[in-house]
Amino acid sequence: MKKLINKPENAVKEMLEGIASVNKDLVLVNFAPNFIYRKDAPNKGKVAVISGGGSGHEPLHGGYVGLGMLDAACPGDVFTSPTPDQMYEAAKRVNGDAGILFIVKNYTGDVMNFDMAKDMLRAEGLAVESVLVNDDVAVENSTYTAGRRGVGGTVFVEKIVGAAAEEKKPLSMLKEIGEKAVENVKSIGIAFTSCTVPAAGKPTFTLSDDEFEFGIGIHGEPGRERLKLKPADKIVDMMMEAIFKNISMKPNDEVALLINGMGGTPLMELYVAARKVNEILTSRQLVLYKYLVGNYITSLEMQGLSITLLKLDSELKHYLDAKVHTAGLRWGI
Amino acid sequence: MKKLINKPENAVKEMLEGIASVNKDLVLVNFAPNFIYRKDAPNKGKVAVISGGGSGHEPLHGGYVGLGMLDAACPGDVFTSPTPDQMYEAAKRVNGDAGILFIVKNYTGDVMNFDMAKDMLRAEGLAVESVLVNDDVAVENSTYTAGRRGVGGTVFVEKIVGAAAEEKKPLSMLKEIGEKAVENVKSIGIAFTSCTVPAAGKPTFTLSDDEFEFGIGIHGEPGRERLKLKPADKIVDMMMEAIFKNISMKPNDEVALLINGMGGTPLMELYVAARKVNEILTSRQLVLYKYLVGNYITSLEMQGLSITLLKLDSELKHYLDAKVHTAGLRWGI
Repeated sequence: MKKLINKPENAVKEMLEGIASVNKDLVLVNFAPNFIYRKDAPNKGKVAVISGGGSGHEPLHGGYVGLGMLDAACPGDVFTSPTPDQMYEAAKRVNGDAGILFIVKNYTGDVMNFDMAKDMLRAEGLAVESVLVNDDVAVENSTYTAGRRGVGGTVFVEKIVGAAAEEKKPLSMLKEIGEKAVENVKSIGIAFTSCTVPAAGKPTFTLSDDEFEFGIGIHGEPGRERLKLKPADKIVDMMMEAIFKNISMKPNDEVALLINGMGGTPLMELYVAARKVNEILTSRQLVLYKYLVGNYITSLEMQGLSITLLKLDSELKHYLDAKVHTAGLRWGI
Repeated sequence: MKKLINKPENAVKEMLEGIASVNKDLVLVNFAPNFIYRKDAPNKGKVAVISGGGSGHEPLHGGYVGLGMLDAACPGDVFTSPTPDQMYEAAKRVNGDAGILFIVKNYTGDVMNFDMAKDMLRAEGLAVESVLVNDDVAVENSTYTAGRRGVGGTVFVEKIVGAAAEEKKPLSMLKEIGEKAVENVKSIGIAFTSCTVPAAGKPTFTLSDDEFEFGIGIHGEPGRERLKLKPADKIVDMMMEAIFKNISMKPNDEVALLINGMGGTPLMELYVAARKVNEILTSRQLVLYKYLVGNYITSLEMQGLSITLLKLDSELKHYLDAKVHTAGLRWGI
């Protein structure tokens, strides 16, 4: 295993120390329990939006803490759910007395632990709601989930809900907006190589030199099928087909697009994919309204990519366009 | 070779088509000869700032075309210098009648071809100057250079010169500012793995499982030495030592920092490095004024990182802070 770390057991803590030391204009980091939170929190009268999940997917979630997106992010160990006390303490720290909204990727451990934190906070009289992201069309159930996994769509959901919270919209409305975004966002990923979890020290899975995994999860869990390598255009075609089977779109619909690298894929290849995605969108007379191309939700050094499409309406466009200032996403400021 | 491409010989062209299809709010792409240029070019009375070099380093340079940075970027084939006609045609397209400034990374082929383009344009009566970036402290001469290589510092030089051009500063002053930035910026890189050039189909070099290359170039060319793997803190220590041997800094000096992934390194590891860099800066009583952590100048899917330090003064700070809107770097807008 070749990794720029010291000891595997310290990697997450030292990453958080690194985030704290360079991103100090944006965030503060709390240790034991671990969470990253907005430097200007709490913001009175604003719903606090909190997410979290296993580490190893950076910039998700810690890189999305800041103005117009998350108030706090709770990182677990690599590919391991955060514990309820992380969300509980984070919520207490950033609570602006307008309620708490959790954005949760659909993995069994995450769902359970966010639910426990919700119960603990509600027991103290706080208003807490959650939005469950399950945008991955690859599989119906998986190694770590009942139902569909939460993947790239999470970036759009956090952006949109965070923007609405910044406008001081009430908790019930944030939940509605978040659920609308979830309803309208679909993703699928593929991988050429595995990643290596530091504590494991060896690749999570192996693929032979002429294979790729179609419908991969973001933890190296199995996808839909293992296939022989194909040209980029064929792979993108298959991915887009899988998305369009799961969402109804008609000519002139506007979409936001995320072409996401899994951590080890050159930007060159993401743009080669972008070319084909654009060709397919054009052939379906869909309008590309907004796009992100780069590493937004990763699996350590995995080579591969995911494609996410979000069907827009005027409300979603408004919140997607709103200004944002985080380590991982920034515009308008 | 596992790459999300179609045919290796079409990878650069298809990448450019991808950039053109999604980044159309920012840039236009010209084919044969290939260059990426600002959608709003030419800007009358503004010096046109142009860079370029081999592809495979994305987002450099095409990702830095836009407001406050480059007017055009000329991508060669992967790790191959662009040809003089690319810079010549790009310059003609974005010429705002206030002169042309080339920002050139110090590689023999790049220097020669930018020089030829300069001669061609000067023969037509245009004012053309260039700034040579040679910030890599690893080696004095290398496989592809006489003198030091141009690497991560290029991102800061393009940002600073681009901001000054946006303020319509004259050509002579841009050259001075650019050369001051070059004087004050130093970098060094390391690699854990090689990258694979699509047309070659196999890794440029091999490293055994317990080795890393110290002082690597951005094309897989040899570095300073091949060493046994060490903990992150030791590697970062060595890198910072190499930088400080080549630039004089005193307590309270302000610096800009780039912790740059080579394309295949997880953000987690870059932040583990950031932690140690910050510790070293603090121990030397240096002030971290601005930072970038991520993939800014890459070598395809190489695993490794580079560290760049730029010593600041009030003029450099002013231009570094100025608003920028490109695919790869954005703030203030």
